[in-house]
Amino acid sequence: MTDASTCETATDLAERLIACPSVTPAQGLVFDELEAMLVPLGFEIDRFVRGEAPDGPVENMLAVRPGPAGSRHFAFAGHLDVVPPGEGWTSAPFAPERRGDLLYGRGAVDMKGSIASMVAALGQVPADAGTISFIITGDEEGPAVYGTRALIDRMRERDLAPDLCLVGEPTSVNRLGDMVKIGRRGSVNIWLEVEGVQGHVAYPHNADNPIPRLVAMLAELDALVLDEGTDWFQASNLEITDLEVGNPAHNVIPALAKARISIRFNDMHTGAELGAKVSEIAARHGGRAIPVISGESFLTPPGAFSAMITEAIRAETGIEPELSTSGGTSDARFLKDVCPVIEFGLCNATMHKRDEAVAMADLEALARIYARVAQAALRS
Amino acid sequence: MTDASTCETATDLAERLIACPSVTPAQGLVFDELEAMLVPLGFEIDRFVRGEAPDGPVENMLAVRPGPAGSRHFAFAGHLDVVPPGEGWTSAPFAPERRGDLLYGRGAVDMKGSIASMVAALGQVPADAGTISFIITGDEEGPAVYGTRALIDRMRERDLAPDLCLVGEPTSVNRLGDMVKIGRRGSVNIWLEVEGVQGHVAYPHNADNPIPRLVAMLAELDALVLDEGTDWFQASNLEITDLEVGNPAHNVIPALAKARISIRFNDMHTGAELGAKVSEIAARHGGRAIPVISGESFLTPPGAFSAMITEAIRAETGIEPELSTSGGTSDARFLKDVCPVIEFGLCNATMHKRDEAVAMADLEALARIYARVAQAALRS
Repeated sequence: MTDASTCETATDLAERLIACPSVTPAQGLVFDELEAMLVPLGFEIDRFVRGEAPDGPVENMLAVRPGPAGSRHFAFAGHLDVVPPGEGWTSAPFAPERRGDLLYGRGAVDMKGSIASMVAALGQVPADAGTISFIITGDEEGPAVYGTRALIDRMRERDLAPDLCLVGEPTSVNRLGDMVKIGRRGSVNIWLEVEGVQGHVAYPHNADNPIPRLVAMLAELDALVLDEGTDWFQASNLEITDLEVGNPAHNVIPALAKARISIRFNDMHTGAELGAKVSEIAARHGGRAIPVISGESFLTPPGAFSAMITEAIRAETGIEPELSTSGGTSDARFLKDVCPVIEFGLCNATMHKRDEAVAMADLEALARIYARVAQAALRS
Repeated sequence: MTDASTCETATDLAERLIACPSVTPAQGLVFDELEAMLVPLGFEIDRFVRGEAPDGPVENMLAVRPGPAGSRHFAFAGHLDVVPPGEGWTSAPFAPERRGDLLYGRGAVDMKGSIASMVAALGQVPADAGTISFIITGDEEGPAVYGTRALIDRMRERDLAPDLCLVGEPTSVNRLGDMVKIGRRGSVNIWLEVEGVQGHVAYPHNADNPIPRLVAMLAELDALVLDEGTDWFQASNLEITDLEVGNPAHNVIPALAKARISIRFNDMHTGAELGAKVSEIAARHGGRAIPVISGESFLTPPGAFSAMITEAIRAETGIEPELSTSGGTSDARFLKDVCPVIEFGLCNATMHKRDEAVAMADLEALARIYARVAQAALRS
């Protein structure tokens, strides 16, 4: 571990983070490395571990550089954990390697590279411009039970309330800056079960086959039109993701039939409302539904904050970003309860794949964009 | 092993057969025992083994006592294999034990007891009355690939064609003689598959979920009315017996969805016709169907043969049997291709269960009924 220096480039800093293996849930070394970068820059470090197996323990870090009294508070948010590297890498996934214009390593884009750009951006943000914080979790890729949620609890305990928050998820698609996420759909998984009475297929009057009722339930659920979409969101969507009976006997009517659905929903719904709707349909077919809400939808409607980000991107890249709400969930689903939140980061083509890589020029450009955003946010 | 004697009762003979363990597929000892009973009674024994693992090897026996030239030929058919005994027996399943009025042991009713009654019946059937044969397999309870089918091939090779055949399956329900099976429904199991394209639930436009197509297919199949039944058969029935996707990932649209159905059908259908009908429906929903026919239906319409059995039962028990086509399949599904076939045997309450038992009085009464049937058949 070396002392952080504002002379280090975003690429240098990204290398240091990638070199610390941190398959989700992350703890220890990679947090030590980030702490070593932030302390010399004037940050107060608050690290804590939460949770027990199977969803923990998870390490989290809240790093704050307080500005003058009454100044604005801008937060960078992100995660130091990475998905497992898998097989078939050209170079070792946790030994960062520069080849051509690219830096290779697990987390290069999702999202150690982005966190490195946030740190590098600080060189252009004077300490007296306002309060800057880093909201960094070690579990965004896993169950996320003891990650950003625990950080938000900690911020509330400490009465820390950022005015604006930027999450560094890799939102760019083909070129750095082409897409910003101003919202995300919510997600609810629902387990469906129908019970019957087991019996022999030759004597169906002595049995009660639960499968036809499950099939009718699923047909009704599949035909549901939840909405037609909104100005900022595509239509909510329901997918049947699993069916399970597990009956090896050809001549036996089974006693239990199960299915699972996944709904990605826009801000016209809540997870609880959808769970209740599906439960009502399930009950009508003699079954039951067990909803597990992964996250509610969020939307930070286009306005001053998205304009700051758009202008910073335009100034550094000449690109006009698309303001999107597409894709999966992120920790912004939790942070939206604290303050307006927007996501912007590197190109996501290689995330979660082997040979994950980032253009080194993108890391440096992203640092300049983040610096512009932070300065604008603290001035706002 | 002792020499058979017509002085032995059906119960004595049943004990000898039960004492030979013969969990399906049966070979060896239990066939030796039956051979030792039949040889002294003038039968020519033809034993042969067919098949390889996993559906074989299976032993079969064709025993014939030829009558005078040009005489009628009556066949008894049955099986010496038994289902596994399972746990919890009061006495050892292959150590026959008389307790009170009952004889306990695996196969007591299904169907070593019945075969013992057939042998005991021979004492009342003079050798010059006509040709008697025993069509006995060691695999009726298992896959039945190398059992009665192989026996029928053997009979054709040897140009042996019975005029009538009685299968000794336990058809009686509450009292010996209350039910005779003059037919059985056919059975076809059909595996259904729908392929799609795997993908992330957040990006359904990049995937193709096969489950909704399977659900629509199953809803259509479940709504099928195959027929309304006939004078002798209940309506054909389709049951969905399994669903399988096996997708552990909540956020993944699976690439393959599978189901299995079982159709029990009457003589208005054939397995091939039903397989084709389901295949057409499956194809219309973008899937495919793989039918496996377990057996075609058969019906020996009420007439001279059923009258012989009814009269024999009435004479010995005073009961008027119901002529039924209910229940599962039996080897009569194969024997129907040789000659008219009817099933009649012991009470089936304990078959396939622990503490399988037969009333000893029933074994002796059944021997007398079988003797009457054989005599009537040879006179017919």
